[in-house]
Amino acid sequence: MIYYDNSATTKPNSDCLKRANKFNDELFYNPSTLYHGGLSVKEEINKSKEYILRCLGALNHEITFTSCGTESNNTAIFCAVKRGVFLTDNGEHASVYNCFLTLKQKGFETVFIDLNNDGSVNTQKLFDYVRNNRVDFISIVHVNNETGAINDVNYIAKVIKSINKNIIFHADGVQAFAKLPYKLSNDIDLYSVSAHKINGLKGTGALIRRKGLNVSPLIIGGGQENNIRSGTENVFGIKVFEYATELHYSLLRENYEKVKKIKDFFIENIDKNLFTVISGDNSIPYILSLSAKGLKGEVIMHSLEMKDIIVGNGSACSSKHKNSRVITACGYGEDVLSGVIRLSFGIENTLDEAKYAVNILNETAKKLKGIMG
Amino acid sequence: MIYYDNSATTKPNSDCLKRANKFNDELFYNPSTLYHGGLSVKEEINKSKEYILRCLGALNHEITFTSCGTESNNTAIFCAVKRGVFLTDNGEHASVYNCFLTLKQKGFETVFIDLNNDGSVNTQKLFDYVRNNRVDFISIVHVNNETGAINDVNYIAKVIKSINKNIIFHADGVQAFAKLPYKLSNDIDLYSVSAHKINGLKGTGALIRRKGLNVSPLIIGGGQENNIRSGTENVFGIKVFEYATELHYSLLRENYEKVKKIKDFFIENIDKNLFTVISGDNSIPYILSLSAKGLKGEVIMHSLEMKDIIVGNGSACSSKHKNSRVITACGYGEDVLSGVIRLSFGIENTLDEAKYAVNILNETAKKLKGIMG
Repeated sequence: MIYYDNSATTKPNSDCLKRANKFNDELFYNPSTLYHGGLSVKEEINKSKEYILRCLGALNHEITFTSCGTESNNTAIFCAVKRGVFLTDNGEHASVYNCFLTLKQKGFETVFIDLNNDGSVNTQKLFDYVRNNRVDFISIVHVNNETGAINDVNYIAKVIKSINKNIIFHADGVQAFAKLPYKLSNDIDLYSVSAHKINGLKGTGALIRRKGLNVSPLIIGGGQENNIRSGTENVFGIKVFEYATELHYSLLRENYEKVKKIKDFFIENIDKNLFTVISGDNSIPYILSLSAKGLKGEVIMHSLEMKDIIVGNGSACSSKHKNSRVITACGYGEDVLSGVIRLSFGIENTLDEAKYAVNILNETAKKLKGIMG
Repeated sequence: MIYYDNSATTKPNSDCLKRANKFNDELFYNPSTLYHGGLSVKEEINKSKEYILRCLGALNHEITFTSCGTESNNTAIFCAVKRGVFLTDNGEHASVYNCFLTLKQKGFETVFIDLNNDGSVNTQKLFDYVRNNRVDFISIVHVNNETGAINDVNYIAKVIKSINKNIIFHADGVQAFAKLPYKLSNDIDLYSVSAHKINGLKGTGALIRRKGLNVSPLIIGGGQENNIRSGTENVFGIKVFEYATELHYSLLRENYEKVKKIKDFFIENIDKNLFTVISGDNSIPYILSLSAKGLKGEVIMHSLEMKDIIVGNGSACSSKHKNSRVITACGYGEDVLSGVIRLSFGIENTLDEAKYAVNILNETAKKLKGIMG
């Protein structure tokens, strides 16, 4: 089986799981307890925090573990700024976009900036808006989860802060973290990450925040995580997250180059009479958005599945919707929209697989086109 | 090592973990995806839901998986009723109590009902209040996490509904679930449970709700869990939760009787000149609250730890506070409050351990009392 839906979720790494097993077998204590075992677990959580921050070069930031990227995004959007104008773009993941729709429903002023054709944010429009209007909070995705477009969030945040240093800037880094060589800038107030996109476990995420930034809790209770996120810490998930981060960072550039070759191979060898490449030049190697014009993405997906190739159709989190909101916002028409599939690569994918899979992809689309007329 | 802090957290059961491993090794797919593997995972989540509901005899309820009991309680309190008067009691876990404090800060009318000496809710005062005042939402803990007092939430909810059927009734069942023989009544609108208290994993909980009850999401995004809880489902945690529930339900009454013997043995053999028993007759066998008058709970805890006996001092989630808020609300004075320790048993504890441990407990308290003068 060839798995090309790594942006939906990755296979948890078995070595990382094994390494973390002791937090179920031995050090299973509640980290809020005051006996030695509990304090050790607390210390282990702190080690995980330090490690992840160090990978991002984020010495002026702190980190709070959450249950997922979605919770991190919700906390960033709802809990750092309580009034004013909230700005985002039309390329955000549902966990940001739908929070903004909720803010709008609640009567907050919300602004959605247009996308470029490749799914990146139109920075000209963004900066113009911020120069001429009141804005209090901005959320921009680091890597678009459907097209893979990279927003240079460090640069964007720098310009934003030069216009108005009081704006709180959040970036959803879920598809970027531990895949893109990247150091978190001090201009970024809040940054969301997730474990299961990098071979960790579902159920673990984190929100990284600039030191000194006040964030109220989304989930209230025993005061865990410095009162920003209550609930007994998911210790096993957190340690697996740390180890998965290590796994990725130990070969970050090598994996980047390897995956880039896979993506480039697909782009070169995909039949251009059958497929439109949606992902642009400035996109992460891990994501390739294609459209088989005149076909339905879901039909291609199922046909490939029968040949043991797993691809996604758009974002897993919005797979029930007819057309992708994000690809629609890129400016494509119905002919392209209906045929969208997403190939998202992982560190376990190989170029040999790609050589096999690209032929299947071309054959499948050709055959389906024949059937369709 | 003898572990008596099972109400803080339990050791994850290794068989349950092994059984669930295939959801990391094989069926690791995102349950929101539409290919066969993803749909299978979704189906497996539904099986877990059905199983847990069946154990509670909750045929008129639905279940939403969350990241913990705390999140379940937050969702119940913040997302089912949007206006009106919120009532609870002074014996609630921090994840309920502090939500009520937040509601109060936000200007909502909140009511806190007094406790009886054993930590149970004073139902006379509760019913009197509800008869004579407007109340829209009520949250009562099923089993008090510090004293083990059992509130008969089915009976309480029945009386409440007979007074005013429009009141939404929530019970925090975290310390009761899969320990107490119990069928969820249709009078209970919302019921919170957690996996790591029953040998599942930290990072998994659930909120059970009466069919037809509208609950808005606390965490917004891709619309998972019927739009009540967004975020990629923690599949591994959910399956371990199901298996841990099965583990407990397969021997629910046997374990109950076994643990009851352990608790009764402690109550009989603890030196009454040294210890006050706080837990009352109507308390769950799994929790025994004691106080060594004139001593400090933390000191006893550390002394026992040196002899490889792990006990808690109050709730793990409030272990940083000087005296327990809950035991204070039971009406005890400083002499009892400062000496509180909590022994909470698990299905792995034995009577032989107890025979050994009770002597150590008596000796330790005696020795410390000698040192203190």
